[in-house]
Amino acid sequence: MTTPATVRMSLDEVRALALRVLLAVGLAPDHAAAVAQTMVAGERDGCTSHGLYRLLVAARSVAMGIAVPDAVPLVEEPATALVRVDGRGGFAQLPFETGRTLLVHKAKRCGIAAMALTNVVHFAALWPEVEALAEEGLAVLAMTPSHAWVAPEGGTKPVFGTNPIAFGWPRPGKAPFVFDLATSAIARGDIELHRRAGKPVPDHWGYDADGNVTTDAAAVLEGAMRTFGGHKGSALSAMVELLGGPLIGDMTSLESLALDNGRKGSPIGGELIIAIDPQGFMGELMADRFAAAEAMFAAIEGQGARLPSSRRHAARARSLAEGVDIPQALLDDIQALLEQA
Amino acid sequence: MTTPATVRMSLDEVRALALRVLLAVGLAPDHAAAVAQTMVAGERDGCTSHGLYRLLVAARSVAMGIAVPDAVPLVEEPATALVRVDGRGGFAQLPFETGRTLLVHKAKRCGIAAMALTNVVHFAALWPEVEALAEEGLAVLAMTPSHAWVAPEGGTKPVFGTNPIAFGWPRPGKAPFVFDLATSAIARGDIELHRRAGKPVPDHWGYDADGNVTTDAAAVLEGAMRTFGGHKGSALSAMVELLGGPLIGDMTSLESLALDNGRKGSPIGGELIIAIDPQGFMGELMADRFAAAEAMFAAIEGQGARLPSSRRHAARARSLAEGVDIPQALLDDIQALLEQA
Repeated sequence: MTTPATVRMSLDEVRALALRVLLAVGLAPDHAAAVAQTMVAGERDGCTSHGLYRLLVAARSVAMGIAVPDAVPLVEEPATALVRVDGRGGFAQLPFETGRTLLVHKAKRCGIAAMALTNVVHFAALWPEVEALAEEGLAVLAMTPSHAWVAPEGGTKPVFGTNPIAFGWPRPGKAPFVFDLATSAIARGDIELHRRAGKPVPDHWGYDADGNVTTDAAAVLEGAMRTFGGHKGSALSAMVELLGGPLIGDMTSLESLALDNGRKGSPIGGELIIAIDPQGFMGELMADRFAAAEAMFAAIEGQGARLPSSRRHAARARSLAEGVDIPQALLDDIQALLEQA
Repeated sequence: MTTPATVRMSLDEVRALALRVLLAVGLAPDHAAAVAQTMVAGERDGCTSHGLYRLLVAARSVAMGIAVPDAVPLVEEPATALVRVDGRGGFAQLPFETGRTLLVHKAKRCGIAAMALTNVVHFAALWPEVEALAEEGLAVLAMTPSHAWVAPEGGTKPVFGTNPIAFGWPRPGKAPFVFDLATSAIARGDIELHRRAGKPVPDHWGYDADGNVTTDAAAVLEGAMRTFGGHKGSALSAMVELLGGPLIGDMTSLESLALDNGRKGSPIGGELIIAIDPQGFMGELMADRFAAAEAMFAAIEGQGARLPSSRRHAARARSLAEGVDIPQALLDDIQALLEQA
């Protein structure tokens, strides 16, 4: 008798499992609910690297003392159009949920508003956040530094994090247009997968610790990754560092990695979210201008090119109808976590 | 006797020449002063494609009725943190100058603010604007669509403009950190230069009108350019379309090109500028966090990599000390303009 490779689960079952594990490893209930929500979103949309797999990462962060499992986020209003949520060392999801309503309120009242999440542990994607805000009718831009893993173009020593930029645009009657892209050439997890599989990486992914081009995945992980798009991607990565770090009173990726002190934990630091109410500038042109945006999307899809969120949306429709297939090996690892807890 | 290839001019002489020509072709004095200022900045910083050469472009825009030479910008405040300047069909520079003080005021009062320039003719770079605002102590992000010349990744038909993203960061005691990057793989002007020189372009710059990869510059200009950075650059270009177009009640690049109706004029449309006051989130951490940003810049430059603005700053220092060398051929073209006017 062979063990089945995957187990079909409903999204409710995914959520229940995530909650059980997160509570068992010591997360406070409100943190557990917020973190579980992003894992359900990951599995639902086919982003399995941000799904239940992240339970192992979260458990390790709590066990190592990297994330404060019961941190109570502190909301402040440093200015009329600014919200700051001090995460006090906990995971980022609950601080986001805690400040979200105030951010929406300020964006709608002022036309534009920004929320800073500070002192939070990041181990999830940004797209669930920008999608949630776009679903409330806002145009949203979010960014966060991470650990100094990525060399600036023209250099070979790490300075930047993988520094994602995420964007959301509301589409009347449809799921929002959303993208979430690392400014590194490739996700760090992809290099890690190559290392585990003993496979060489393309020679434009990074450098070894001596600054030489290499196809050895382990050497890139110890050396430096590269940005996407040459000097342009490098410039954008610097912008993410500045806006998601010092601007909001938080750390650069260099500082975050120094604080980590070799523990190889999830990045600690900040995140900036800018939300704009289309009503502000569009006024009475709302319907007409949203139609112009739709015409642009149609011009992209009409020639067979994909919108960034289309793959996720297709996976979502499948998952809602049929559930998701979770690898048995992952479930075994999760079961082991529960038994240790 | 041979004609000298270039003529050495001081920046004051450059400004005086630009003003004389702009007034001669019919621009109102306030427009002429604002436009001349960006041409001086272009020559000063070694960006000659945005220097005096643009006099020919500006003159053509006025002669063809694309730009309204005496448009009076209209400033509105659609919300607490929003400024809109309706350029009423004139060049973008004066509307920017007209709204600038109010934008700075709102950013400092609210923590973050946005300015939309609408119904303006664009033929200049964004970096002078973000630099000016960063010099007032703000972190600044600006973007603008143009004409539909660029295909989305995965397609071959133009949808996007060259869609620049510009960013400025204030550096205490130094010129701001500034970049201004097209989300197209290459500037349209570079393809034009290849066409004039009869030189082939690299095969990743664009497609011909039938959607085939081509190295024929003229075919790319009639077909479609590509974005930088593959699907990531394409996603960012879509963001610029949405934020710099429909969000602010203005046109997409598809609409701007349709309006142009084959005249091959400068793009008409909008521009979004987001300004954030570092004092808002940093508070008492100002000095410390600006130092963290400087440490990041030092980590980049310390390994021999260049900051995006470094080449411009080096040219600036030279130009201020020694003046600039203007090609005689360009001065001849400008003289011809004056004689026609």
